[in-house]
Amino acid sequence: MINTLIKKIQETNAPIVVGLDPMMNYIPKYIQEKAFAEYGETLKGAAEAIWEYNKGIIDATYDLIPAVKPQIAMYEQFGIEGLIAFERTCEYAKSKGLVVIGDIKRGDIGSTSTAYAVGHLGQVQVGSKKYSGFSEDFVTVNPYLGTDGVKPFVDVCKEEDKGIFVLVKTSNPSSGEFQDQLVDGRPLYELVAEKVVEWGNECMGDKYSNVGCVVGATYPEMGKVLRKLMPNTYILVPGYGAQGGKAEDLVHYFNEDGLGAIVNSSRGIIAAYKQEKYAEFGEERYAEASRQAVIDMIEDINSALANK
Amino acid sequence: MINTLIKKIQETNAPIVVGLDPMMNYIPKYIQEKAFAEYGETLKGAAEAIWEYNKGIIDATYDLIPAVKPQIAMYEQFGIEGLIAFERTCEYAKSKGLVVIGDIKRGDIGSTSTAYAVGHLGQVQVGSKKYSGFSEDFVTVNPYLGTDGVKPFVDVCKEEDKGIFVLVKTSNPSSGEFQDQLVDGRPLYELVAEKVVEWGNECMGDKYSNVGCVVGATYPEMGKVLRKLMPNTYILVPGYGAQGGKAEDLVHYFNEDGLGAIVNSSRGIIAAYKQEKYAEFGEERYAEASRQAVIDMIEDINSALANK
Repeated sequence: MINTLIKKIQETNAPIVVGLDPMMNYIPKYIQEKAFAEYGETLKGAAEAIWEYNKGIIDATYDLIPAVKPQIAMYEQFGIEGLIAFERTCEYAKSKGLVVIGDIKRGDIGSTSTAYAVGHLGQVQVGSKKYSGFSEDFVTVNPYLGTDGVKPFVDVCKEEDKGIFVLVKTSNPSSGEFQDQLVDGRPLYELVAEKVVEWGNECMGDKYSNVGCVVGATYPEMGKVLRKLMPNTYILVPGYGAQGGKAEDLVHYFNEDGLGAIVNSSRGIIAAYKQEKYAEFGEERYAEASRQAVIDMIEDINSALANK
Repeated sequence: MINTLIKKIQETNAPIVVGLDPMMNYIPKYIQEKAFAEYGETLKGAAEAIWEYNKGIIDATYDLIPAVKPQIAMYEQFGIEGLIAFERTCEYAKSKGLVVIGDIKRGDIGSTSTAYAVGHLGQVQVGSKKYSGFSEDFVTVNPYLGTDGVKPFVDVCKEEDKGIFVLVKTSNPSSGEFQDQLVDGRPLYELVAEKVVEWGNECMGDKYSNVGCVVGATYPEMGKVLRKLMPNTYILVPGYGAQGGKAEDLVHYFNEDGLGAIVNSSRGIIAAYKQEKYAEFGEERYAEASRQAVIDMIEDINSALANK
């Protein structure tokens, strides 16, 4: 699946991914009102509003981008109805040719991790039949439980040609509390990175592994070191824009081949119409504002890469 | 919520929790066949079989135990239908007076962690109304992202009188890869434990905190140290029975007041009928086998505690 993602990145010349993390307060009032008129102020009404909102953004941007990254928590908070909207969003994005990265940050052990992997990336056996519970192309995975937790995902990736991104160094302010702790003089996230390489060697694409990692845009110096430590690992980079990560800092997450990283923006794209810069679009044209924000983001990152 | 859990433990004199982690191969053939006859070999058929199986175990054990711990991965692998069975199981267990610990091992940052917390422990706002997406009393939380990831759960616990168990030292063989790494001469899991105490101080019940932790039964020496490091933290202990943890090793997870720990068994209880010891019950009476296994487990742990 990493080969497919790279091909899409090259075709679009856009090493970016749009984070579909819908907060209710991002969703234009007219979409909410329409959904509530039909389904009431219910979980189903909320899920319908989320779906319509996502569909608008996908329709307005799919030709420009390689991938979307729906954050499952934003759907799961609305229970079953929210998760139906999640799955519907994944399916629709795939029907538009997009690679879907499920930001699920799951992680457990043994047969339990296998269940997550099978549920999101593979197929579950029911009697003599097989089904996909959810249908992402990649998912994010939490490594705290060690190899027992990650290996079952890698096994499913091998069987199904899918991929994962393992959390190495996250973008949030307190990520250092545990991740930066020094072990024999080296931060823990470097140990995790070495394991990512080990897991990834078992599941290679042409040049890069189907086992990628997550390194936040907010820690560029660490990104630089991690880039070198994991030469064949694709880095999913959250934290650009709203969280403070800048394009010039991101160039170090890329390899000399211009590949090796894919930068996520969520709020900066999907709620672009709320920014002063895109205010002219207004609520009604929120999706066009998202399109313009995508164009601007691609240009921002590509010019930084050109000046590298 | 920790007060409620402790009260239930004292009433039943059973510091145990039954892990509802249904694997298809645990479910008696007659239950599967009935479900498939009604819904076909579909995700809905699988979910129906899981629900019937769980209901049998709950009905046969609810008067003996304080709590159940459904492992969401085992449901999530069957997609939306599986998650409906998860929610149905949680609701049914609560209607029988049981405390429900959702083993979800979620963890993200900021508003995303809030979304998980709201979805599983709290109420989500939809227009002018509020709803519970899922409805556990406690959930398990992964700490790899630091305070930013855990604090939103603690905030919801305070508002809603709910609780969490944070992964400190997990029961699996490779848990040491990162958790045991020495930081200034001390294992990382001790640093996590100290943070658990800090987070927990903000959300105390009468004697114990609503912020508990997870320490595997398979590492009793570490459990002993962690017990002292976190005197007011309830420890959820997986790994008893099938994974190798023994009752005599578990006494160190308890405080002098006889409280402080709750021991989980999943396979050992729910698939008891597959063990030679309970084979006489047969598939048809799987739930009675589970009841006997619960009785035996309570006796095993209580005699070890009496001989402490």
